[in-house]
Amino acid sequence: MTSPLRLGLIGTGRIGQVHAATIATGADTELSYIADPFIAGAEALSQRFGGRVTTDPAELIGSGQVDAIVIASPTPTHIDLLAAAIDAGIPALCEKPIDLDIARVDALRERVAAAGVPIALGFNRRFDPAFAEVRARVAAGEIGDLEQLTIVSRDPAAPPADYVAISGGIFRDMTIHDFDMARFFLPDIVEVTASGSTLFDDGARQHGDYDTAVTTLRASNGALVTIINSRHSAVGYDQRLEAFGVNGHLSVANAHTSLVSASTAATTDARGPYQDFFLDRYAAAYRAELADFVSLTRGERSHAATFDDGRAALVLADAATASAGGAGRVSVDLG
Amino acid sequence: MTSPLRLGLIGTGRIGQVHAATIATGADTELSYIADPFIAGAEALSQRFGGRVTTDPAELIGSGQVDAIVIASPTPTHIDLLAAAIDAGIPALCEKPIDLDIARVDALRERVAAAGVPIALGFNRRFDPAFAEVRARVAAGEIGDLEQLTIVSRDPAAPPADYVAISGGIFRDMTIHDFDMARFFLPDIVEVTASGSTLFDDGARQHGDYDTAVTTLRASNGALVTIINSRHSAVGYDQRLEAFGVNGHLSVANAHTSLVSASTAATTDARGPYQDFFLDRYAAAYRAELADFVSLTRGERSHAATFDDGRAALVLADAATASAGGAGRVSVDLG
Amino acid sequence: MTSPLRLGLIGTGRIGQVHAATIATGADTELSYIADPFIAGAEALSQRFGGRVTTDPAELIGSGQVDAIVIASPTPTHIDLLAAAIDAGIPALCEKPIDLDIARVDALRERVAAAGVPIALGFNRRFDPAFAEVRARVAAGEIGDLEQLTIVSRDPAAPPADYVAISGGIFRDMTIHDFDMARFFLPDIVEVTASGSTLFDDGARQHGDYDTAVTTLRASNGALVTIINSRHSAVGYDQRLEAFGVNGHLSVANAHTSLVSASTAATTDARGPYQDFFLDRYAAAYRAELADFVSLTRGERSHAATFDDGRAALVLADAATASAGGAGRVSVDLG
Amino acid sequence: MTSPLRLGLIGTGRIGQVHAATIATGADTELSYIADPFIAGAEALSQRFGGRVTTDPAELIGSGQVDAIVIASPTPTHIDLLAAAIDAGIPALCEKPIDLDIARVDALRERVAAAGVPIALGFNRRFDPAFAEVRARVAAGEIGDLEQLTIVSRDPAAPPADYVAISGGIFRDMTIHDFDMARFFLPDIVEVTASGSTLFDDGARQHGDYDTAVTTLRASNGALVTIINSRHSAVGYDQRLEAFGVNGHLSVANAHTSLVSASTAATTDARGPYQDFFLDRYAAAYRAELADFVSLTRGERSHAATFDDGRAALVLADAATASAGGAGRVSVDLG
Repeated sequence: MTSPLRLGLIGTGRIGQVHAATIATGADTELSYIADPFIAGAEALSQRFGGRVTTDPAELIGSGQVDAIVIASPTPTHIDLLAAAIDAGIPALCEKPIDLDIARVDALRERVAAAGVPIALGFNRRFDPAFAEVRARVAAGEIGDLEQLTIVSRDPAAPPADYVAISGGIFRDMTIHDFDMARFFLPDIVEVTASGSTLFDDGARQHGDYDTAVTTLRASNGALVTIINSRHSAVGYDQRLEAFGVNGHLSVANAHTSLVSASTAATTDARGPYQDFFLDRYAAAYRAELADFVSLTRGERSHAATFDDGRAALVLADAATASAGGAGRVSVDLG
Repeated sequence: MTSPLRLGLIGTGRIGQVHAATIATGADTELSYIADPFIAGAEALSQRFGGRVTTDPAELIGSGQVDAIVIASPTPTHIDLLAAAIDAGIPALCEKPIDLDIARVDALRERVAAAGVPIALGFNRRFDPAFAEVRARVAAGEIGDLEQLTIVSRDPAAPPADYVAISGGIFRDMTIHDFDMARFFLPDIVEVTASGSTLFDDGARQHGDYDTAVTTLRASNGALVTIINSRHSAVGYDQRLEAFGVNGHLSVANAHTSLVSASTAATTDARGPYQDFFLDRYAAAYRAELADFVSLTRGERSHAATFDDGRAALVLADAATASAGGAGRVSVDLG
Repeated sequence: MTSPLRLGLIGTGRIGQVHAATIATGADTELSYIADPFIAGAEALSQRFGGRVTTDPAELIGSGQVDAIVIASPTPTHIDLLAAAIDAGIPALCEKPIDLDIARVDALRERVAAAGVPIALGFNRRFDPAFAEVRARVAAGEIGDLEQLTIVSRDPAAPPADYVAISGGIFRDMTIHDFDMARFFLPDIVEVTASGSTLFDDGARQHGDYDTAVTTLRASNGALVTIINSRHSAVGYDQRLEAFGVNGHLSVANAHTSLVSASTAATTDARGPYQDFFLDRYAAAYRAELADFVSLTRGERSHAATFDDGRAALVLADAATASAGGAGRVSVDLG
Repeated sequence: MTSPLRLGLIGTGRIGQVHAATIATGADTELSYIADPFIAGAEALSQRFGGRVTTDPAELIGSGQVDAIVIASPTPTHIDLLAAAIDAGIPALCEKPIDLDIARVDALRERVAAAGVPIALGFNRRFDPAFAEVRARVAAGEIGDLEQLTIVSRDPAAPPADYVAISGGIFRDMTIHDFDMARFFLPDIVEVTASGSTLFDDGARQHGDYDTAVTTLRASNGALVTIINSRHSAVGYDQRLEAFGVNGHLSVANAHTSLVSASTAATTDARGPYQDFFLDRYAAAYRAELADFVSLTRGERSHAATFDDGRAALVLADAATASAGGAGRVSVDLG
């Protein structure tokens, strides 16, 4: 029997809290150290789930008391923390995106490759049971060659204007998940075309962002991916996918919150609301993501996004931003 | 190429009109004669679809101008018209029920058997594409031995009190269709248990009938059938069936009137109304029923209910009436 | 803030283990004592979830260290343990059934009523989110007066023959859940009619039991309940319900294990397996049941089945057994 | 009561035959004249449905025996026949597209506008009950402002290579229906971006066409339309639409051929094939289209595509062809 993996958590915001709970309830993980400059956040998590606390991530990384770290701090800190983890030889699961600036990402790229320290990017949707099932069934040949992939990804509601201001724009902030999902099926994307509109969100309008977008990707084998985004959805979190192949298609439906349907004179077979919060919809994905990261640290098989996958998603987001901004069709080379 | 079958129609009420249209538009049938004491009804149909008219069914049967007849006149006339058809050697498709009095049915039974003239009973649901498909798939062994059959059969709204008065009661008037459907899958029924309630319909209350009923049938092989009836259904005509076998089940859903679904903050995936009128829901069944009758007259394969099937349905209805009225479990012998 | 409820657990079999995990992870409960004559079972749970252990339930009840108990030991022990709990003034959540012998249940009944100690029966399906939602929506008048209730309840596979031998028969062992569900909607049942068949299970055949059953209940207001049971289901655990009222119906569908559907040349929109184990299907129900029991011990609102509800379910099971055995329609008085 | 509209039919191929049957069975239409250079085609239809025959469309138009015409002859003949109809003052329902050459269309445009003779283009999908219902519900404000429209349109199988050669390419031949559907909801399209691939069809490969395409349209109000096309679909004719608005979305599902679903150990709730032929899927649409054309000839309300709508669809097809061929984003002015 393996002893539990001692995990250090950096960042105690919403996602940090999810990771803390997952680590604490995992059979083979323990939350040993928590770092956050906002020490009250670290202390609150420590009280619930155990672990030492510090305001200084460097202290955590250098403590000798963590076997691996989870980076859930703000995006601008990711690059430096990843660098520190690599130097310390400590595997890291880093929330997406690596950074909003591809130059900074590229600057670290060679070092990551040379170090050989396991790095996973937090594209949790790869671990959603439904998306993972479709990918596995496609890989097993159930629908033959994949020709078209359609991803509908709509958030329940637009983020605050403050957040939009620093988000890097819809393609880097929101569609980036869909870019990684596209590459989960079709890694070698060669072309990006995107259109954006600003229809309802004042924050987006104020900061020159879009609230509505459609992106088309072309894979090197000619397969076409369509990504349909909106920053709002009255029906709740709208997360669907269809893989269309030679022999049929596999679809992921939205997750209902109830098994009940109603039939009356007005409407029939009416279901209730969808799960409308990403932490509910992707609860299982967060757990599976951490389990996969444990495997990765043990040198076992992993489906996680790598550093290069994280970079590729950003390259696509940059290309989509350029395309929607006027560049039309944009070729990309993810090699 | 065969010449069209010359059909005589007796009775020009709602069902008679359906048959007239089906006959007139069929490629291998023609409406040659129409009889109704209410001659205006016959004339109206003749004007639309052709055919001679008469007030006297005997004239039609004896005219030498009909190859077969469809009996769609009131129930009390069925026995005599069937007898006349048999005597004349003319095949007949007779609307259900044969009669409300089993003694009168039994009195004709031997003569029907001896005559060898093709007689089909108008249990049209046997020809509904969905029910017929389930039966064929069960017969082909797709779900293994059939263990349970569940039939939900609810009318949109209760009939007028006048009609209830002469209907013979819910089991003979409404459930009789379901008895035949049960026997379409499991012909050898040996036991009937039924419960009825009068919950909403003044007509039923006034005439000692039920508006709500549940019937359980046992087949000789032990398979159990459940029939769930109501004389009203706010959602429209509610016609479902589930065949449960060793290896799974096959279900018939209600027929929606539209392919559209709506998702809003309140409800998701909500469909519109079901088809809510038996002539719409069973339009295809009526056409297939007539086509089968044409086959029957030509000595070809038929899935239609026979005279004995019509008798069996009435025996089951009588047993259910007795059971609900206080007899508890009632054994039947359909042999 | 209330201090956690100290719970004693009696019985560490499959259901006992479920309760132990629920108690240990609940925010306001703690597992303080575990009793099982098979001490290794108690020790294994203690190691995972804490709590003292004993082979003797009486020691647990008399320890002064439990605020309430959960009785998950074999059925024949329930009556004596309930009596002991009442005498000690300790609230108890007791797994169903109270006992297989109505005389023994009745013997305790007055004492339970007189004691006023909160007793809940473990009819966990009342707490299933879907069934509870339908009941709440019916109670809120969404579909008007309830006229028919249809319950489909099929187990994935028949239990071992040994178990069938001591189970009390399908109606007391399996349908008893459905009797309680029926009474969750329509408490005042006045009549029972049941039919059973033995179609596939050697254990049932060997011990004179049925593996297939249909039961009809009549409520005092005339509403009719249909319960359709089978001891096997190739498609997995089949647990459905339809509440049919004046203005429409509310239905509970089976729970799929995946959001994925497949469309190929052969079939379209095909979903994967249902949840096929009661602990998965009713995981949320077990948690909600315990939370409700905590409320009950605190004198707050509870939806749990009471001792009298547990008795009523057994009365209905006895009546169904008699009905299927030859008694036809059986009147019952649950008052 | 109005006398029936005497209709002349030009062209007796597959679509011509559909129109002939619709005209002949319509209550207020009669097929009075049929023209086809391939006279056997005209004669065959005349035998079934009546009407005089000729090899010369000009004879039909000038006969004084037709009140309106249906043009179902090959695309290259449309412009001249429309011109002749206008000159004769005879309303025409012309199959799409008007022509493959926008210059020829534009050359006729002013004359059509000046003549005031009712011209309808055969974009039959506007009359599909489901699409028409969604449009009406969107227009009624059910989902608030329309922000995104997604159209999935996949044919069962690619056309013969010969046909591909003269088809004008996938955007002018197939997507043109979807362009008109997009404009049925959002008439004022200002921008087109399209991507095409050739993945499976030798005919497309041979003739420089695509078999797979994704098109994004922007409306003047910023709403975005996505059109997903494939020349094959293993599951049958794949025709779906989703209108996404501020308050929810309305979706059109594929049409199943049966109400039956199957649940076994392998898959649950599996439906059978979709309708897989456009004449089946759009049978109701063809009837409604003709009924609308009759209204149009009578000066009543019409939802049919006008000559300008037909031109707009071709402009969008040309823009998509250019975009996919390398032009990236293409602005269009449909004014």
